[in-house]
Amino acid sequence: MTSLLVVGSVALDTLETPFGIAESVLGGSAVYFSLASRLFAPVGLVSVVGEDFPREHRTLLEKQGIGLDGLVVKPGETFRWNGAYEGAMNQAETREVQLNVFGDFRPDVPAQYRDTEFVFLANSSPHTQTHVCRQFPEAEFILADTMNLWIETEREALLELFGLIDGLILNDEEARQLTEKHNLIAAGRWVLDQGPAFCIIKKAEHGAMLIGRDDLFVLPGFPTMEVRDPTGAGDSFAGGFMGYAAHRQDFTYRVLRAALAYGTIVASFTIEDFGTQRLCEIGAEDLQERYKNYLRMCHLPDAPGTQQF
Amino acid sequence: MTSLLVVGSVALDTLETPFGIAESVLGGSAVYFSLASRLFAPVGLVSVVGEDFPREHRTLLEKQGIGLDGLVVKPGETFRWNGAYEGAMNQAETREVQLNVFGDFRPDVPAQYRDTEFVFLANSSPHTQTHVCRQFPEAEFILADTMNLWIETEREALLELFGLIDGLILNDEEARQLTEKHNLIAAGRWVLDQGPAFCIIKKAEHGAMLIGRDDLFVLPGFPTMEVRDPTGAGDSFAGGFMGYAAHRQDFTYRVLRAALAYGTIVASFTIEDFGTQRLCEIGAEDLQERYKNYLRMCHLPDAPGTQQF
Repeated sequence: MTSLLVVGSVALDTLETPFGIAESVLGGSAVYFSLASRLFAPVGLVSVVGEDFPREHRTLLEKQGIGLDGLVVKPGETFRWNGAYEGAMNQAETREVQLNVFGDFRPDVPAQYRDTEFVFLANSSPHTQTHVCRQFPEAEFILADTMNLWIETEREALLELFGLIDGLILNDEEARQLTEKHNLIAAGRWVLDQGPAFCIIKKAEHGAMLIGRDDLFVLPGFPTMEVRDPTGAGDSFAGGFMGYAAHRQDFTYRVLRAALAYGTIVASFTIEDFGTQRLCEIGAEDLQERYKNYLRMCHLPDAPGTQQF
Repeated sequence: MTSLLVVGSVALDTLETPFGIAESVLGGSAVYFSLASRLFAPVGLVSVVGEDFPREHRTLLEKQGIGLDGLVVKPGETFRWNGAYEGAMNQAETREVQLNVFGDFRPDVPAQYRDTEFVFLANSSPHTQTHVCRQFPEAEFILADTMNLWIETEREALLELFGLIDGLILNDEEARQLTEKHNLIAAGRWVLDQGPAFCIIKKAEHGAMLIGRDDLFVLPGFPTMEVRDPTGAGDSFAGGFMGYAAHRQDFTYRVLRAALAYGTIVASFTIEDFGTQRLCEIGAEDLQERYKNYLRMCHLPDAPGTQQF
């Protein structure tokens, strides 16, 4: 049974960081998301590739148990992204994008996936996201990602999408750009006023916030010593978050808080090596061990309350 | 009994933020520190002012119970700082500094203060800090602050000071500049290798880290809606931290973690209004209420560990 689905990109990435170069490696939002969430729950992906998509990549995804019934092959070439990171690797510099067959991706979700309960709409045009959204009338939990481009150019369509989704995930810069509020709590609350029941704001190495109608959760970043390639961190985060919630089949704040931590933890593994390499190596024990460390590092003790200063 | 002492500046500040202007108001590191720590424990300050220092400021400090036996009055004018903040108010722009009588501040700690157990060396030249440090041969707990200027110009003296103190407090930029390490955990551990038992790294609105030989604590920032003037946030933070530790007379990691949260909380009040205004209004109940909120907002639940994904 596939309880979790991602609709997004499958790509061939060429990456350069201060630690090396990787050429034409497996990438894309749907790939990172599904490789992250498969650690928690069965997951399928809906995407499109060209006829050049290497057989070995397909095999890798299959071996990781990812449902590929929604992976369409079209005449032409696969989406390609060429990006580089410098210095502290805070920001990717896009050197080249070839949308190729992904350019007119207007996904029709296969019939067997239409009753999926947990759906992640990876970053794409809000028109496409809305088109997908309408194919899941019974989904319990739809989370959407977006980016600065759509906030600038498709604001109306984006606001329309907000009426259809349960959660929105975006980074601090995008949150400020979208809401025109510097304060991130105010920004998150503005998003809730547009429809979603909660908003996740990612702050890169500074952690993340979960803003719901009745909850505010602030989580520091997982302190990581090794960062070799930040590609896919955001989609791995979303995959860990949705994967854990789908595994628990529960969206109480208690579970969403733990899900936020698991999202952070999966992303902390992703960035330790190039592309999807590290993500393919890890298992449940690795996640659980890091979760225990996280609990230890974040634990704020009860300070004596009865004693007056 | 004064168990806590700060050696630093007393100033007349002129402040401009997007929310207004305050002229010649009470300021300086020793003032913010002592107004913050008096909420937890008796505190004295060692500093110098000129003959122009207004009687009302002295009265205010006395009324808040701050020991002024170490406040020397010298012929000349009081230290003056004129600073401005723009936009998100992340960085102060210094418009004018008049060191005046603070220029050759070489404090001799009054005899009755020499057995103080908790000492905060606010930011000043590491030569001055070392001179002060040697006057507390029996202090249990000496915490020092520093700044980019000394890291650049007095590196050797600073490293020498590290052999005499228990803790160092600095912001993320200073930590990276001092240690030449981008990773803040690595930076903190480098500091421990130079002598201090722990290092606190402040990350402004992103919270703070406590790095000790056997502990690593990461604390997200306290989510604040109102920021009108960030002046004094750092020294209020140090005051809350040291004040709580002095109140508890305990430096186990458990207490230091709570102290870090109290430091953050006191600073979150300071920045809500201009100068020392907010800091003078609050009491123990305000701190305790915010601590409870902090506990709620930071609480990462135990995720089921036995259940396999």
